[in-house]
Amino acid sequence: MLHIKELTLNIPETTKPRVVIIGGGFGGVNLVRKLPSKDFQVVLFDRQNYHGFWPLLYQVATAGLEPDSIAEPLRKMFDEDYEDFHFRQVKVTGVNPATKTVTTLVGDLPYDFLVIATGTKSNYFGNEQIKKFSFPLKQIPDALNLRSQMLQAFEQANMIKDPEVRQSLLNFVIVGGGPTGVELAGALAEMRKHILPGDYPGLDFSQMNILLVEGLDRVLPPMSPKSSQTTREYLEKAGIIVKLNTLVESYDGQTVVFKGGETIKTQTLIWAAGVSGAQIQGLPPEASERGRYLVNPFNQVIGFPDIFAIGDVAAMKTEKWPKGHPGVAQPAIQQGQHLAKNLGRMIRKESLVPFEYFDKGSLAIIGRNRAVADLPKDMHLKGFLAWAAWLFVHIYYLIGFRNKLVVLANWVYKFFTFENGNRLIIRPFIRKEDVAGQEFVRRQADLD
Amino acid sequence: MLHIKELTLNIPETTKPRVVIIGGGFGGVNLVRKLPSKDFQVVLFDRQNYHGFWPLLYQVATAGLEPDSIAEPLRKMFDEDYEDFHFRQVKVTGVNPATKTVTTLVGDLPYDFLVIATGTKSNYFGNEQIKKFSFPLKQIPDALNLRSQMLQAFEQANMIKDPEVRQSLLNFVIVGGGPTGVELAGALAEMRKHILPGDYPGLDFSQMNILLVEGLDRVLPPMSPKSSQTTREYLEKAGIIVKLNTLVESYDGQTVVFKGGETIKTQTLIWAAGVSGAQIQGLPPEASERGRYLVNPFNQVIGFPDIFAIGDVAAMKTEKWPKGHPGVAQPAIQQGQHLAKNLGRMIRKESLVPFEYFDKGSLAIIGRNRAVADLPKDMHLKGFLAWAAWLFVHIYYLIGFRNKLVVLANWVYKFFTFENGNRLIIRPFIRKEDVAGQEFVRRQADLD
Repeated sequence: MLHIKELTLNIPETTKPRVVIIGGGFGGVNLVRKLPSKDFQVVLFDRQNYHGFWPLLYQVATAGLEPDSIAEPLRKMFDEDYEDFHFRQVKVTGVNPATKTVTTLVGDLPYDFLVIATGTKSNYFGNEQIKKFSFPLKQIPDALNLRSQMLQAFEQANMIKDPEVRQSLLNFVIVGGGPTGVELAGALAEMRKHILPGDYPGLDFSQMNILLVEGLDRVLPPMSPKSSQTTREYLEKAGIIVKLNTLVESYDGQTVVFKGGETIKTQTLIWAAGVSGAQIQGLPPEASERGRYLVNPFNQVIGFPDIFAIGDVAAMKTEKWPKGHPGVAQPAIQQGQHLAKNLGRMIRKESLVPFEYFDKGSLAIIGRNRAVADLPKDMHLKGFLAWAAWLFVHIYYLIGFRNKLVVLANWVYKFFTFENGNRLIIRPFIRKEDVAGQEFVRRQADLD
Repeated sequence: MLHIKELTLNIPETTKPRVVIIGGGFGGVNLVRKLPSKDFQVVLFDRQNYHGFWPLLYQVATAGLEPDSIAEPLRKMFDEDYEDFHFRQVKVTGVNPATKTVTTLVGDLPYDFLVIATGTKSNYFGNEQIKKFSFPLKQIPDALNLRSQMLQAFEQANMIKDPEVRQSLLNFVIVGGGPTGVELAGALAEMRKHILPGDYPGLDFSQMNILLVEGLDRVLPPMSPKSSQTTREYLEKAGIIVKLNTLVESYDGQTVVFKGGETIKTQTLIWAAGVSGAQIQGLPPEASERGRYLVNPFNQVIGFPDIFAIGDVAAMKTEKWPKGHPGVAQPAIQQGQHLAKNLGRMIRKESLVPFEYFDKGSLAIIGRNRAVADLPKDMHLKGFLAWAAWLFVHIYYLIGFRNKLVVLANWVYKFFTFENGNRLIIRPFIRKEDVAGQEFVRRQADLD
């Protein structure tokens, strides 16, 4: 055991301008890649030691992929052509713009340029009870926990006496009809159809319910109404119960109460309903709006010419995007690449170029041969074509040769066999609340 | 949360003889495979829902493979041609031979034949302090914890002030010179040579020490003295410090004390020193010897014709193997297959056939092109030939088409690139002891 005081950031002194980047997501990683590395010292902070391809996280939760297929160690990504690059796996706790310093758990570091690329965190809208009992799907450990939880629910449903409790184990409620919720619901429906009946011959899978709950009046609200409509049809064809205009009021680990009073019993409530920007302490409130930093077209945080925000944590309001860009990978990638060039211009005393978002379209997959795509020029795809496009785009963007190969092999295999590979209950599932003195089944270890 | 009382085993009534198997390892799985399934009802209990290929577990710890490459869900293995097969993920707590019943956490079950195939557990020889602070390598979560611990040690060594503490982070002490210890030490040395210097340019890897500690006078004691000698040379050529005739007296999480008084500071002590049979309560002491069940040549536990023990938990003493068979996969596999046939003979009232162990030889790998093999007829291989044999045997025996393919792809890739793929710190490392009121770095979350 190390005392935290024994650690220090240990970043070498430098005469070059120092760029400090907080967050190794799509924005941060693409910034590092495009930054003229001989002109800067680059320091990257992240709480994880890997970059994740989050659009495929739901496949880890449904046992389609292992974590290494969607994640790449940050040190591996930047180990050769990046001489004065320094990664530190530590949390940044604040920024002091007056002294141009960031504060971390193990010490402070002065910066010349600071880039906040921290992305988002789950938003429970202040409901602590939902936060305590629901399953988020933001990080790799979340996906592994959810996978174990779902598989354990089937193991337990197979051993339960009371039919009402069995039903609560077989009810899966997904809150949030955005891409994560839709794609997770679709993958669960595929498992119900092709995989689970073979694994659990003792269970009647016509009793397994998948509910997708959305507060607005359509699923995939960021996509076109046409694609939302198609998606809803696909979901219902796959036997998913879609509840629109529905808000969750409470969940105590057993019963979901919807606004209006309707209830359903479930052991598994998945929270994919909302996110807010993962902000850093130290900037004044007027620099933010609804949890995101207000930035100008050069990604400079309003009032701070040497502090930048990119990706989901930034709100760049433009005529075409009056609320800022959508919270998906492409704006973060493009802003990271664009900012790299602007930082180069800054130290060469050239004038900065404003960012313009190139909307390549958006995609969502519901199941085999069932996907939707909104393309530029108001073109829409669905069915096999959209599915093929989804496959192509996701393989293409997955970072690193090895990952592409493994992911492709997995998918080809699944396509021909209808088989999910990795149904391992590895991570002991730990409920967040301990109930003293009672013999509850809170994790697999209790059954060990 | 479910109350444990709400669960029940839920095994259907049957008129066929019921075989209850405890443990889904090499013995149990091969028994189920060969059992004439139409003649029996088969119930398999395991605390995990997967069958593990444990000879490759050390590769999960050193980030060479992901868990799904070495594990296969038990339900997936037996989902189609096994009509009256019932898997339950639950711990068996005891057996009552008088009533012919096994007891589990969620209820009792009568058996006609009971097969104990529980394998081994780590043996700390009564040293609770070592058990508390050392890292075992028996299960998949152990391997993932150890992987996170080792990678975090490098992250922290990169941020430490005190050179003495840095050294303790860079010292890795492996206790136990059997196959697990030797292969883990070899893989760590390969990482030190080919991978880590690129990932951590700020660290001096000539300071990283790998110690392999063995109580006896040679490494790989179950193998031939010739192979032990070759292995020791390979280990030392790879820069591993081999300490023979050395016992560990204590470890407090900081300092290892060897018998005789010598000490070394390390944050990572890996315990691969000993195992004992994972026995079930309820059989009389005279049926066991040193933690293993004494069995006759039909694998019947002495005194109990309807209770069998196979694999590592069984001691079948023969003229050639006076202490019982070696604790490796082959005896378990062969006993499982053999017992399947004998159980068929039993219900057909035929006489049982005694088990004979066919020793196919044994193998150990130290690094690229460095392995040793003891083959039948006193033949020994080393170097490239033994390495190629090791590769072939391990790929051949890995169960399931998909695993073989992924494992092969990983190895081919590693061979040409010297690259380990999956250096993800996923599982938060949790020290087993909490130190109240002090701000120690006990897990990654403390740095989050």
